[in-house]
Amino acid sequence: MLQIDQVWKDLEALRLQTPLVHNITNFVVMNNTANALLAIGAAPVMAHAVEEVEEMVGIASALVINIGTLSPAWIEAMEKAMKAAAAREIPIVFDPVGAGATTYRTATCRRLLDAAAPTIIRGNASEIMALFDAGVTTRGVDSSADGTDAKTAAEALAKAYDCVVVVSGATDLITDGERHLLVLNGHPLMPRVTGLGCTASALVGAFAAANPDPLLASASAMAVMGVCGELAAELSAGPGTLQLHLLDTFYSLTREQLAERLK
Amino acid sequence: MLQIDQVWKDLEALRLQTPLVHNITNFVVMNNTANALLAIGAAPVMAHAVEEVEEMVGIASALVINIGTLSPAWIEAMEKAMKAAAAREIPIVFDPVGAGATTYRTATCRRLLDAAAPTIIRGNASEIMALFDAGVTTRGVDSSADGTDAKTAAEALAKAYDCVVVVSGATDLITDGERHLLVLNGHPLMPRVTGLGCTASALVGAFAAANPDPLLASASAMAVMGVCGELAAELSAGPGTLQLHLLDTFYSLTREQLAERLK
Amino acid sequence: MLQIDQVWKDLEALRLQTPLVHNITNFVVMNNTANALLAIGAAPVMAHAVEEVEEMVGIASALVINIGTLSPAWIEAMEKAMKAAAAREIPIVFDPVGAGATTYRTATCRRLLDAAAPTIIRGNASEIMALFDAGVTTRGVDSSADGTDAKTAAEALAKAYDCVVVVSGATDLITDGERHLLVLNGHPLMPRVTGLGCTASALVGAFAAANPDPLLASASAMAVMGVCGELAAELSAGPGTLQLHLLDTFYSLTREQLAERLK
Repeated sequence: MLQIDQVWKDLEALRLQTPLVHNITNFVVMNNTANALLAIGAAPVMAHAVEEVEEMVGIASALVINIGTLSPAWIEAMEKAMKAAAAREIPIVFDPVGAGATTYRTATCRRLLDAAAPTIIRGNASEIMALFDAGVTTRGVDSSADGTDAKTAAEALAKAYDCVVVVSGATDLITDGERHLLVLNGHPLMPRVTGLGCTASALVGAFAAANPDPLLASASAMAVMGVCGELAAELSAGPGTLQLHLLDTFYSLTREQLAERLK
Repeated sequence: MLQIDQVWKDLEALRLQTPLVHNITNFVVMNNTANALLAIGAAPVMAHAVEEVEEMVGIASALVINIGTLSPAWIEAMEKAMKAAAAREIPIVFDPVGAGATTYRTATCRRLLDAAAPTIIRGNASEIMALFDAGVTTRGVDSSADGTDAKTAAEALAKAYDCVVVVSGATDLITDGERHLLVLNGHPLMPRVTGLGCTASALVGAFAAANPDPLLASASAMAVMGVCGELAAELSAGPGTLQLHLLDTFYSLTREQLAERLK
Repeated sequence: MLQIDQVWKDLEALRLQTPLVHNITNFVVMNNTANALLAIGAAPVMAHAVEEVEEMVGIASALVINIGTLSPAWIEAMEKAMKAAAAREIPIVFDPVGAGATTYRTATCRRLLDAAAPTIIRGNASEIMALFDAGVTTRGVDSSADGTDAKTAAEALAKAYDCVVVVSGATDLITDGERHLLVLNGHPLMPRVTGLGCTASALVGAFAAANPDPLLASASAMAVMGVCGELAAELSAGPGTLQLHLLDTFYSLTREQLAERLK
């Protein structure tokens, strides 16, 4: 089970440090990802030119790579940034958006994972299963499977790349291949907002900058995501207002709210 | 006149099928378009790399092409995707954002329309008139003319490309060159939110995936757009909150609300 | 001190003229920038292809250049657009996002400033200091310094490029190298929303289209930004809802609200 003391300590450390999180992410979610990082207490920067990614990684505390709207020039920048982050030993979060939907996405994921092993991979069950077994196909960028359905794939992937794998879903599964943590918080309205998986990956990056244990950092990030999602959903008439209330809740989340909700 | 039974049936079919809608659209509206599709009950995917668009079209139920922030690499991907969609006989919606504002936009529209005739073209009156007559100029991406002002252009365009043309405005005109439908719903605050025309095009794509008659599908989409806009505007103090309430209303629209408002 | 009569006159002129503002800006803020321009009463257009920027500048009343997510093709388009705007003598606003964070950003700023001197440069204190002295470094895209800290740099930059420099912060400093105006309005929650500096630059562009004196136009824009930020913050539980209430407030701002708040 998750410990409230650990989650709150990680959030307080994040808020105190305001880590600079360098994101190379997709066009759909950039605004919302930046706002989520600002709201939770981190400092976002988005930069994708091959001419500057290594230097930007050089001042960042974490790197978040998200292939949602990939193209050749961006992939080259992602590879450069991941290698630079690995050399500096700052945490790398990798989000394989739509892996399994096209061969280009699956092949790009393998290329990037082989270029520099990430600290943490976060995806939905379909994506994680597609990374593990190229025969699995994904319908677009959404998953119909739950986080726990991808347990075997997640464990194998974690061992293959010596990293933590976060499979998000109604229940989130977090594993380093040996240990497992489950996050039971969240709300069914959340998948009706685009890019909340991408937001989760960005938060994982911010928490990983604040806690050097990637398993615990990932669990804290996913717990905050789930609890804030519940609080925001209760204020919202639909997915439009949920997106905004979620940002407000990231900003204002208290220890009491977290303690009351954490499952 | 529009029939409530038809519009509601189309919306129910859409919600039941959650069609995957592949969008190659502009940077300004991507987040909001994806959220609109999720809220109405469809599944959005954004992918623009020439390396993957054909494969992504292969799993999609509709393709929406929007040239709002065009550039050569994107146009090449749009052309590939349109040809693949035409080959698969899935509906193609084409949104000629800013046609008439620059020669590059107008020429790009002609190139894409000639590469693969869309199922439905949706634009504002200036854009539709510019597609019909290259001598018409548009001031940026907004139209000062009403949907019905472009009737002649819309009919000619529909016949030339054997497609349905939707001209949006205070009154929306939908025609296949012979038949005409008018949608009278909507709210004057809607043009103060960027990209609601793009949202309309995306909804047209989702409805066209659910109803094989593009004239009826377009009318249902525009009716839902207009009714939800009215409902959302009544909850909103300005265009900022309107954008979010519109998403909430897409998500929660009932048959009763539709029946009460549909003109 | 700022004169309410001047600020209100500029806002009324803007609303009457609905100037077309051509933005070449970053992916993170495009939606919000377009919405801010629509809400305040301007007409936004986003276009970045080298094939069309000169023609789009040809129908615009102001050009806003923002390097937030720069890459070579975009820089080439920015340079072309700036030269075309200079030739047409329409106002150019330049926003050096992240200048000082990487050498690529700082070098790009110098290249663009040398290609065509802008009418107005708007940045935070770190960015303005980095433009003045290449030895100054910026942590990502945020500034820890206040607007007035960059007074020496702002004055020198204004003289070097014969332009107005706006340094935003808790206090905004506006100078042409000789004269100085301070804007004291604003709210501490505003920096927790991404891209409000970019929004400020876009508003400066819209006001510069409506008032040919760039010093006064900039001050009016920053005053409206600050007052609306205060009004919106009082309605908001956090940065998520602030972003939307700010747009509503741009749309509905009255002379009475402005008079009551303007410092």
